[in-house]
Amino acid sequence: MNGKTKNTRPVGIFDSGVGGLTVLRALRERLPFENFVYLGDTARLPYGTKSAGSILRYARQAARHLQQRDIKLLVIACNTASAVALEELQEELQPLPVIGVVQPGARAAVEARRAGRHLVLATEATVSLRAYGDAIRAIDREASVQELACEMLVALAEEGWTTGAIAEAIVRHYLQPFLSGDVSLRAETIILGCTHFPILRDAIRAVAGDAMSIVDSAGTTALAVEQLLHSAGLLRTGPDSGKLELLATDGARRFARVGGTFLGSNLSPDDVRLVDL
Amino acid sequence: MNGKTKNTRPVGIFDSGVGGLTVLRALRERLPFENFVYLGDTARLPYGTKSAGSILRYARQAARHLQQRDIKLLVIACNTASAVALEELQEELQPLPVIGVVQPGARAAVEARRAGRHLVLATEATVSLRAYGDAIRAIDREASVQELACEMLVALAEEGWTTGAIAEAIVRHYLQPFLSGDVSLRAETIILGCTHFPILRDAIRAVAGDAMSIVDSAGTTALAVEQLLHSAGLLRTGPDSGKLELLATDGARRFARVGGTFLGSNLSPDDVRLVDL
Repeated sequence: MNGKTKNTRPVGIFDSGVGGLTVLRALRERLPFENFVYLGDTARLPYGTKSAGSILRYARQAARHLQQRDIKLLVIACNTASAVALEELQEELQPLPVIGVVQPGARAAVEARRAGRHLVLATEATVSLRAYGDAIRAIDREASVQELACEMLVALAEEGWTTGAIAEAIVRHYLQPFLSGDVSLRAETIILGCTHFPILRDAIRAVAGDAMSIVDSAGTTALAVEQLLHSAGLLRTGPDSGKLELLATDGARRFARVGGTFLGSNLSPDDVRLVDL
Repeated sequence: MNGKTKNTRPVGIFDSGVGGLTVLRALRERLPFENFVYLGDTARLPYGTKSAGSILRYARQAARHLQQRDIKLLVIACNTASAVALEELQEELQPLPVIGVVQPGARAAVEARRAGRHLVLATEATVSLRAYGDAIRAIDREASVQELACEMLVALAEEGWTTGAIAEAIVRHYLQPFLSGDVSLRAETIILGCTHFPILRDAIRAVAGDAMSIVDSAGTTALAVEQLLHSAGLLRTGPDSGKLELLATDGARRFARVGGTFLGSNLSPDDVRLVDL
């Protein structure tokens, strides 16, 4: 295989559904010449309330499907699947490089505030594994981390109720305990520890105030992917802009409708191919 | 097989998760001597936002699992699965009798108000099949039926946010267009067309007012099951009270925690056995 062929192989991305499209968007902005193939496991979403055993099984099936499509790197663009399955998939799929979104998200938080008091908004499964707490303290021992399961935020994002009184009331319900009381205990950064949450940034900002640092994994994940591709000599630098293939395990129409918001561009059901895992 | 053995065989009930426990509760109240086996497909919930093809496949797997447990009757205690899969399962599983929750729910609505203006709150999949509209007009040609997809109500019920300002704001968001404007167009009955919704009854009542008829499928489904068992000579009438077996495809702990609210009694994870479909 020559260098050119190797470099045109696509970057594979998978998520439980459409939330990972926020990561895909950042990847395409940073790496406009790369080809991408995105797989959303919409037949079994959400992952965040399911057991670690089921999440690992689903993640493994999705990863193997993408591996068969000759990807050159795999991004697990779902915090829950990253928290549960990253290490297993890195080992099982080698030499294919595998990147999750938890470590990049932790890095973004520590860059935003050293020795900070971080509040992680995530799914039940991510919180129960303390994935962000471990990842942050591994690079900043003086940080303090609180992790909060926010399933209603997933529902808000999925339904597109991203602004307005109801969205803010739900955000306030979750955040209030971390914004009031003793100043020395209040959260200083909010980590959007679920790829659904970046589209709720305005509502979170409205509740948390202008001084709050709000970080997500998308940008730092794209940077990590770029660095890894570069160091492996797999970066595609041109000449034509990259292609995008969208796969889902169920519901092309809903994927297109909801996914357009996350990707930041309109999608039609014809843009989405259904596959069976 | 003698009559006694036939009658002690359990009634099988399946749902995408825990919502169907509201139907199980009504069944146990009406039929205290029956044995029940309940299967919640928690590994793949929710069904309501998935495609008809996936829902049919999941429902078929759940039904076959229960059939292998020698059930004497199957209740599809999920409106979405009833809307999508009832006829197929009735045909495929014969001579096993199969009952869904949509027809009983339609009957409850028509009993509450003849020639009424009904508003059905349901999932996307149930609404897209117009399941309640067809079922109601089949027994009351003068009824008018509007069907509304309310995915945020599913999330509220799953998270246990069943009362309070946020629950009422979300309910109001959905109901407002059907409660205001020309009196001759306002809804006269609200049909809880998803087995998750009965636990939101107080919030719906608070928004819709005391004059609104609010109906669900649980009671009329239990009545239909009793009639069918009686006419088939399969009714168990004693002497000892019936047993209950709870099965789920994922997450016994979450099933117990969330399911207790729906069943109206405390559950422990040890009460739930995990099965693989």
